[in-house]
Amino acid sequence: MKKSIFYHAGCPVCVSAEQDIVNLVGTENVEIVNIGQDRNRISEAEKAGVNSVPALVTPNGNTLHINFGASIADVKG
Amino acid sequence: MKKSIFYHAGCPVCVSAEQDIVNLVGTENVEIVNIGQDRNRISEAEKAGVNSVPALVTPNGNTLHINFGASIADVKG
Repeated sequence: MKKSIFYHAGCPVCVSAEQDIVNLVGTENVEIVNIGQDRNRISEAEKAGVNSVPALVTPNGNTLHINFGASIADVKG
Repeated sequence: MKKSIFYHAGCPVCVSAEQDIVNLVGTENVEIVNIGQDRNRISEAEKAGVNSVPALVTPNGNTLHINFGASIADVKG
């Protein structure tokens, strides 16, 4: 199965959601990307439809925004 | 493993997120509850910390709000 991608920015809401998603989906099925640190992946996240973090992009390309940590604008700013 | 519970209210955003969650987590690991129809479970959802639907309550009791379909107030109203 193609992996999901979990985008976050290190915020407390992000860390909590990351643990939940990894538990639910399995660590081998999800790539974790910190766009606060890995800033060259911000545009990739935006193209996938990520408006806020944490967000999970599923293998079929749907974006699930999970709770609310920070907007992409905040991460960029 | 204890099941997660996915609360929704039949909205288009809910249906889309439900398909994604079932694909990711596995249909055997998640109970689907439509609180728009199954209205006696609204209070249970509220106690679990569900403020809007769709939302996933994980086996360890964390609530993940996924995208945004409707507030609980809207579902009740």
